Amino acid sequence: MKVAKFGGTSLANAEQIKKVCDIILSDSDRRVIVVSAPGKRDKEDTKVTDLLIACANRQLQSGSSAAELEAVVKRFKDIADELKLDNTIVEEIRRDLEERVKLDTSHQGMFMDAMKAAGEDNSAKLVAAYLNSIGKKAHYVSPRQAGLLMSSEFGNAQVLPESFDNLKMLNNYDGIIIFPGFFGYTIEGKVATFPRGGSDITGSILAAALKVDLYENFTDVDAVYAAHPGLVHNPAAISELTYMEMRELSYAGFSVLHEDTLVPVFMAGVPVCIKNTNNPAAPGTRIVLARELTPHHVVGIASDSGFCCIYVSKFMMNREIGFGRKLLQILEEEGISYEHTPSGIDNISIILKQSQFKNKETESKVLSRIKNELECDDVSIDHNLAIVIIVGEGMKNTVGTAARATSALAKASISLEMINQGSSEINMMFAVKENESNKAVISLYNEFFNK
Amino acid sequence: MKVAKFGGTSLANAEQIKKVCDIILSDSDRRVIVVSAPGKRDKEDTKVTDLLIACANRQLQSGSSAAELEAVVKRFKDIADELKLDNTIVEEIRRDLEERVKLDTSHQGMFMDAMKAAGEDNSAKLVAAYLNSIGKKAHYVSPRQAGLLMSSEFGNAQVLPESFDNLKMLNNYDGIIIFPGFFGYTIEGKVATFPRGGSDITGSILAAALKVDLYENFTDVDAVYAAHPGLVHNPAAISELTYMEMRELSYAGFSVLHEDTLVPVFMAGVPVCIKNTNNPAAPGTRIVLARELTPHHVVGIASDSGFCCIYVSKFMMNREIGFGRKLLQILEEEGISYEHTPSGIDNISIILKQSQFKNKETESKVLSRIKNELECDDVSIDHNLAIVIIVGEGMKNTVGTAARATSALAKASISLEMINQGSSEINMMFAVKENESNKAVISLYNEFFNK
Repeated sequence: MKVAKFGGTSLANAEQIKKVCDIILSDSDRRVIVVSAPGKRDKEDTKVTDLLIACANRQLQSGSSAAELEAVVKRFKDIADELKLDNTIVEEIRRDLEERVKLDTSHQGMFMDAMKAAGEDNSAKLVAAYLNSIGKKAHYVSPRQAGLLMSSEFGNAQVLPESFDNLKMLNNYDGIIIFPGFFGYTIEGKVATFPRGGSDITGSILAAALKVDLYENFTDVDAVYAAHPGLVHNPAAISELTYMEMRELSYAGFSVLHEDTLVPVFMAGVPVCIKNTNNPAAPGTRIVLARELTPHHVVGIASDSGFCCIYVSKFMMNREIGFGRKLLQILEEEGISYEHTPSGIDNISIILKQSQFKNKETESKVLSRIKNELECDDVSIDHNLAIVIIVGEGMKNTVGTAARATSALAKASISLEMINQGSSEINMMFAVKENESNKAVISLYNEFFNK
Repeated sequence: MKVAKFGGTSLANAEQIKKVCDIILSDSDRRVIVVSAPGKRDKEDTKVTDLLIACANRQLQSGSSAAELEAVVKRFKDIADELKLDNTIVEEIRRDLEERVKLDTSHQGMFMDAMKAAGEDNSAKLVAAYLNSIGKKAHYVSPRQAGLLMSSEFGNAQVLPESFDNLKMLNNYDGIIIFPGFFGYTIEGKVATFPRGGSDITGSILAAALKVDLYENFTDVDAVYAAHPGLVHNPAAISELTYMEMRELSYAGFSVLHEDTLVPVFMAGVPVCIKNTNNPAAPGTRIVLARELTPHHVVGIASDSGFCCIYVSKFMMNREIGFGRKLLQILEEEGISYEHTPSGIDNISIILKQSQFKNKETESKVLSRIKNELECDDVSIDHNLAIVIIVGEGMKNTVGTAARATSALAKASISLEMINQGSSEINMMFAVKENESNKAVISLYNEFFNK
């Protein structure tokens, strides 16, 4: 059995939905299908989710939102008409939306989640209706029926552990299950949505709960590429990589999969395949627990910007027991999470996302707490840094990867603010100035893939 | 005014003491002289300090130590005779030693410190007597008279801050002051010694207290070398380096100066010069607050062995607020101090001195506390690692230093367990297997000094 998830562009119009259904029907193992809300049909178009957000906001502001609601209905109706479905499904969707806008608006986050989830929920109903209309047995299953339970952090909810047992009930269905992504229900029965990348997470949770043979994640690219196609012309497609490698690449800017997506499938040991709805014959990229190491050792190069570095120096720091712990305690007390802490003898740097500081005041407060409470000689901060990482489990036993990487960067005249290679050796990380980050990715790509 | 410190080999016999006195008298600024205990005259010889330790141990074991005491007296008498001093000074030294062995032995550490300090103390008296005998006005000054106060950690004592004010009294003397290194007195009037490198520290404290123009540290080498002469043939002499550079090199195995020595002079901004008693005309190595950066950027390459690396991995570690702090807290609770913590996304390594673990049991305890309390996926330890560092403040704004270093190491087929370069960029650090450490130093030296 396979779980297949389809993204918004794969469900944007009737033509795309037909492609999706062809893909589903071409493999009888594709039994559980997770769908997103209809996405953009072209660059100028608006996603259904964004139409729903506009509708919710109008309702919150003025207490009515008839025009906005009608825009959502029309989007679904256009698709239904093209799919030659009768009006029953459209009326069902209209009633569903009308009920949602009447929900209690006193808790805005809760109301917003109920509205946003209507995109995926009705998309699933529509796809199930289409499959049934062409004589294929398909069931729309609601996360409520299936017991996909969520924490009450509306807009940023997490799956509750008991869901994994509950979801086994999906085995009881025959035919194809069409399951809406992006949301579940709290124990009190309220809709709660995942943070970004939500439908991917739903697919991953279902794949893990059912311990399927494969979780297929259908997007609009043929594969995960070794570097961003916007930076490198025609980059190499990655045929296979490990969860850890994918996670490191996602962490540092690969947007194909949100980094949290892999947690459930990793825990359950279910392999993942990234595939293209528009080119389902392409082999895609497999994400697995372990793989044979490829000869050139590096699988991908990623970069992410928006980092800063707090530099702390204090003479005799390395003799002061508890210094590092106290430093991290201050960050913890201020609610700041950090990424890395490379150190010298009398100095330590803290690399973190600039967005961790809400404003200049919180930044100044943290710096002065460090300086005063730890009696440091010098505390300063560098902004606008980027992290560039090369990832590959095969780097582990290789002499010279660091030399190749740093030589390539030196040849491109890129100054390294920081180098960090821990003993895991799945990645090697460089901090560079933000405006040199693209050049860094290109030079590393050329070193490891164009030679 | 200058403070000059002379080490044990510079005071081992009459010939050496005459050299020392020539050096003192050749520069009228050399007003405060710190002396060690007489060292070895040749390879087979025993240092006075070791004779004193043997004497103290015999006294502790058997309640008498006449023969051992006589061996110490003889060593001083030999020198006095060669210097053609009359017997007064030898009798004074004998009386001093006889009083010391009669001290209370119930606190062994306190007794041992009083015994060990007799080497420096009587060496200072002897040098002062010699200078006076040749018509040069010299005063032996005891740390007690001068108010060099110490904490009561016998064998590992630290200077008390009020000492720096007290020691200004040395300005009241005319003529040359001969001051014994290595020890001071507790507030209760007990002798307490510094840890290793003790005479160097005494000199540094005096230089800082008197805010002299220069602290001259006379040893038996012409200069500090860019790499260990035992590893690299005829290594480059360093003419000038900063406190920070010297501290980093000392930290990683340069034994010329103990890393703590520089603290007082650094705080007071007094420059240091390392010179050779046997070749005082050589310019030596100056240690200063700031220097003009040399063209090849790297001043020295050091290595130190006996490190281990604890490798900790936990899926989603980077999302767990407080993980790093809790990890360091466990180390702190177990009294383990660590050196560096390079990290990936889901893993962190802790580099520390292997000697931090008293035995296999304490090591296992720390590893299992980390694994269980932090619920880690994997905790393991690698032993027998060495740290190799290249040091140079000039590396700061240089593109390509990392490339040169890692390429040189790769050419020598050395596998890097870890790379750490923080944003201070005074050093770049590599962890390698202990048995590859010498090869690493040689390859880096050749890259940065033989090209």
